[in-house]
Amino acid sequence: MELEPSPLALPFPDLPQIAGVTPRIARAGYKDWGRCDLTYVELAEGTAVAGVFTQNVCCSTEVELGREQAKAGRARALIVNAGNSNAFTGYRGRKAVEQIMAQVADHLGCPQGEVFVSSTGVIGVPLPRDKARAGVEAALTAEPCGWEDAAATIGTTDTFTKGTMTQAVVGGKTVTLVGIIKGSGMIAPDMATMLGYVFTDAAVEPAFLQKCLSAANAKTFSCITVDSDTSTSDTVLAFATGAANNQRIKRPSCPGADAFTAALEDICRQLAHLVVRDGEGAQKFIAISVTGAVSDESARKVGLAIANSPLVKTAIAGEDANWGRVVMAVGKAGEPADRDRLSIGFGGIWAAREGQPLADYDEAPVAEHLKGRDITMQVDLGLGEGRATVWTCDLTHGYISINADYRS
Amino acid sequence: MELEPSPLALPFPDLPQIAGVTPRIARAGYKDWGRCDLTYVELAEGTAVAGVFTQNVCCSTEVELGREQAKAGRARALIVNAGNSNAFTGYRGRKAVEQIMAQVADHLGCPQGEVFVSSTGVIGVPLPRDKARAGVEAALTAEPCGWEDAAATIGTTDTFTKGTMTQAVVGGKTVTLVGIIKGSGMIAPDMATMLGYVFTDAAVEPAFLQKCLSAANAKTFSCITVDSDTSTSDTVLAFATGAANNQRIKRPSCPGADAFTAALEDICRQLAHLVVRDGEGAQKFIAISVTGAVSDESARKVGLAIANSPLVKTAIAGEDANWGRVVMAVGKAGEPADRDRLSIGFGGIWAAREGQPLADYDEAPVAEHLKGRDITMQVDLGLGEGRATVWTCDLTHGYISINADYRS
Repeated sequence: MELEPSPLALPFPDLPQIAGVTPRIARAGYKDWGRCDLTYVELAEGTAVAGVFTQNVCCSTEVELGREQAKAGRARALIVNAGNSNAFTGYRGRKAVEQIMAQVADHLGCPQGEVFVSSTGVIGVPLPRDKARAGVEAALTAEPCGWEDAAATIGTTDTFTKGTMTQAVVGGKTVTLVGIIKGSGMIAPDMATMLGYVFTDAAVEPAFLQKCLSAANAKTFSCITVDSDTSTSDTVLAFATGAANNQRIKRPSCPGADAFTAALEDICRQLAHLVVRDGEGAQKFIAISVTGAVSDESARKVGLAIANSPLVKTAIAGEDANWGRVVMAVGKAGEPADRDRLSIGFGGIWAAREGQPLADYDEAPVAEHLKGRDITMQVDLGLGEGRATVWTCDLTHGYISINADYRS
Repeated sequence: MELEPSPLALPFPDLPQIAGVTPRIARAGYKDWGRCDLTYVELAEGTAVAGVFTQNVCCSTEVELGREQAKAGRARALIVNAGNSNAFTGYRGRKAVEQIMAQVADHLGCPQGEVFVSSTGVIGVPLPRDKARAGVEAALTAEPCGWEDAAATIGTTDTFTKGTMTQAVVGGKTVTLVGIIKGSGMIAPDMATMLGYVFTDAAVEPAFLQKCLSAANAKTFSCITVDSDTSTSDTVLAFATGAANNQRIKRPSCPGADAFTAALEDICRQLAHLVVRDGEGAQKFIAISVTGAVSDESARKVGLAIANSPLVKTAIAGEDANWGRVVMAVGKAGEPADRDRLSIGFGGIWAAREGQPLADYDEAPVAEHLKGRDITMQVDLGLGEGRATVWTCDLTHGYISINADYRS
């Protein structure tokens, strides 16, 4: 099925090269499609790595291995296979990943554990080892490519190619972060159904990079949802080559640590938003701000209960300010809430305050807001200081068409 | 929007009168529709009552009051308002319910606490007291009606009228149970979006009736889901008039206690299935059997994770034996599972065993099974003896049409 680009798509920006990072692509032919489907990113010696992974207990071999590899903190290469997730493929699937790691490690003369592999696509079909071998061979010797080609090659059902960048000044040096990501369905917290990669020339100790990435993840990728389904393969990796020659960031007190931390969170948020903008069938981008919760985590859970509610998502699709469905979603979240303190608004206009519809509620400006592409919802629980923002899209006929027809 | 009857609809059966139970209906005009929308059921003196209610913390006044009233164990009347749920209506909503209770109690000469009130429909609009007063007045003096009229009157977006019956022999006496129910959207565990009522002539102590109803609920209503959304008003009440004159059932060792317990569970399961059969947009009725879990409760949670997965539900809508999506749903359930022990089947045919696709898997009979209306799925976790069956429906364009257009 050829899909129309999402109406929420953003154009692919001009992205700079990152010193010490060289992407290449090739065609392994994992599916019968006329496009490249294997991405190889070579990383300079000494590159630090950090990762966050799906919480799905039926995760893929790639996730199991990657989680262990990330702990060692060093990376020399990344391989991404598109069209086959290699999940739920047992011993044969694991052998295929190990073969790729060995092949790349042999080429670079590095330890096998420094070669990271991700795969995305159909579950339950072992990655074909012959196709993988030939694809990797072709990629290792291919000409370097630009970010847009790399970002396109990791995609599967994505309707647009996703990348972004940001910069920070770290101890007097400007460091650059580039990110690419894929994902549009099976998107839920605990990591979305997606593969995301951030590359930076900053010099950062692996342990600090991991801390920053985990913190950024909690406020970005863990705050998005398309359909509440959590993939078996979700992975976000951050690679830092150190080529910017800033004083290596080891802890929060180091020069520029705050700026780098903020830049990493910024790029993660941008990437997370791109995934929501390509949510299957999405017509509207929805930001839900929850305030007045007993804690930030409680606010996040309430926000996700709203964002995952099919009835709320279909109401937004229908441009209906149906705050009654929001009340329902708050109440089922399993978090502290008091019906009589709850306030709900759309587009900055309160529809209900402290448990009752507003007597002078004027629906006209709200109706106008809901006709747009970018929707905001405000939910105040009236209990405490906890707050969070989560992002999702609406639930439309497009989602049904894509998923009732997309064949495993 | 006028909806076509669900293709999974069952005809309304012939249901007997229950001694001590007298239903009547009237038109309060809560919505601008040409139908009755207020149901009044008069119950003989000494009728025992038990109830289970939504876990949604933003529940309606009716639920708050009903939960307290049920503890006292006695009922003389039930009023059901359709078209307005009276939820999230604050002080004014509460006053309207209390007015109804007082009006009926005055008519019957009974304590106000023995008048149970349920309301279903739009959230956030206080039940209009003048309409309620006139509607109750008309109902109190109306001619008694049959079960089909009563069942139709409690409905809202239901596409067919739902009722059923069963019988049991209790200490040599035959007792009869009749049930009516409404619900088709906002259906999820912790009680579905629904109002259900069971009436029996059995003589049962309230405490034992409550125990039986709670146990039956755990295996029936708590095992169904349409869209994972939990209503603010869900209520199931069981009324036992005692007119059958069996030896009153007080504890499990009493004559016929087992038969009555089984009959109550049976009627609750039948009613729960009727709700799923009217799931918004449903084209297929899906029974998911989970075995090999570490406990029955764990099996239920895994089953519900599958049943609530939009990707699994759309796959079934597309008649696609996409067991990879089932793997994903098992893995995100938050319950113990081991990818390498997991087996998945459709229509009694295994597609994957112990973590791997079956080499000799023949998809043809599975594809044939998926073309039908009644779908079964088998999931074995391979860990323990825990088991559960949950029921749901597929997710189709119909769900989107109903909920993106249905106006609050």
